[in-house]
Amino acid sequence: MAEKGILTVVSGFSGAGKGTVMKALTERFEGYALSVSATTRAPRPGEQDGREYFFRTKEQFQKMIAEDALIEYACYVSHYYGTPREYVECRLAEGKDVLLEIEIQGALKVKKRYPDALLVFIMPPTAAELRARLIGRGTETEEVVKRRLKRAAEEAEGMEAYDYILVNDTVEACAQRLHRLIQSQHMRASVNKDCIERMKRELEEINAGTLS
Amino acid sequence: MAEKGILTVVSGFSGAGKGTVMKALTERFEGYALSVSATTRAPRPGEQDGREYFFRTKEQFQKMIAEDALIEYACYVSHYYGTPREYVECRLAEGKDVLLEIEIQGALKVKKRYPDALLVFIMPPTAAELRARLIGRGTETEEVVKRRLKRAAEEAEGMEAYDYILVNDTVEACAQRLHRLIQSQHMRASVNKDCIERMKRELEEINAGTLS
Repeated sequence: MAEKGILTVVSGFSGAGKGTVMKALTERFEGYALSVSATTRAPRPGEQDGREYFFRTKEQFQKMIAEDALIEYACYVSHYYGTPREYVECRLAEGKDVLLEIEIQGALKVKKRYPDALLVFIMPPTAAELRARLIGRGTETEEVVKRRLKRAAEEAEGMEAYDYILVNDTVEACAQRLHRLIQSQHMRASVNKDCIERMKRELEEINAGTLS
Repeated sequence: MAEKGILTVVSGFSGAGKGTVMKALTERFEGYALSVSATTRAPRPGEQDGREYFFRTKEQFQKMIAEDALIEYACYVSHYYGTPREYVECRLAEGKDVLLEIEIQGALKVKKRYPDALLVFIMPPTAAELRARLIGRGTETEEVVKRRLKRAAEEAEGMEAYDYILVNDTVEACAQRLHRLIQSQHMRASVNKDCIERMKRELEEINAGTLS
């Protein structure tokens, strides 16, 4: 049986580059699976069911809620978004390290349900750099940039709740650090209970003279 | 000011190769300091005060205990052994990642005093391999090997108390994993409170228009 994967929740300010870092991580290293969210919003041109999102009707989504088929969910701008439990748990059982990109409220719900989940917050080196990146996108109005910076200040209040803080200085370096961090989690005592039990059993057998 | 170092406590069965792994770690990578213990036992030929141990009289040692100058101490075969606090705290303040090789009781005392300390347990791949390594040393009588294996079974009961379990399959690979694990700890939210506060302050300033 494959060793169980590590569930990692990645959050960060809009503009911190977490999407780019996760893309680099999954492209450069083997063994990762990006969780796919379910949503009730309509697919945009080019979006494919099961790739960008699982597209569901409101009724289907509410049924998922009722059946506890979502690890967490939230409602934004009158549309539901949530993390299907089955997809995540299947990938973890296969031994994949699953990445979940969600906001703090969702992150805390995941941690409650999966205490071994790793909560990672990605931030830019400085707030000035964050603003520069938001402006640099060239696609956001000044109003949107301002709103995102206000939102970032609110989100910063929750940073202590995360296990690890990663500074996204360069995408490559940040993806590599995230990779090493996740790989280190495979050595956590709490996810190696079987291995500890096996060692105890073997030592008992050796001491009893039943293991030659 | 240098970023504060990470304090890592390494334990493991006699024969698990923890000494060799720590030697490889400090030789291959920069930035580590091995804690030097204080002891009341007499120096052996070739041992140097402040290198292998800080050699102290019983009176000096008891004074250190009374003055809270030891992080932890224990008594083995009528000799005291302990970890001088000043040495560890100075190296950490300098930004060195400090390694402490002690047994579980000491490890738990360190964790209580330094909640951010990383407790690592190094074990061989299998119990049979542990026995083979103990026999392979060629320096131990059958009686000593038996006693060490019995002791290993007792120590295994405490493994769950550690944060991470490292399998010492090869010294090089194990030292590398230990290095990456310790480096990951520099990203822990709990050791980056200053960095979080700085980001909050900068975002406030940007939103207030006082940071240009």
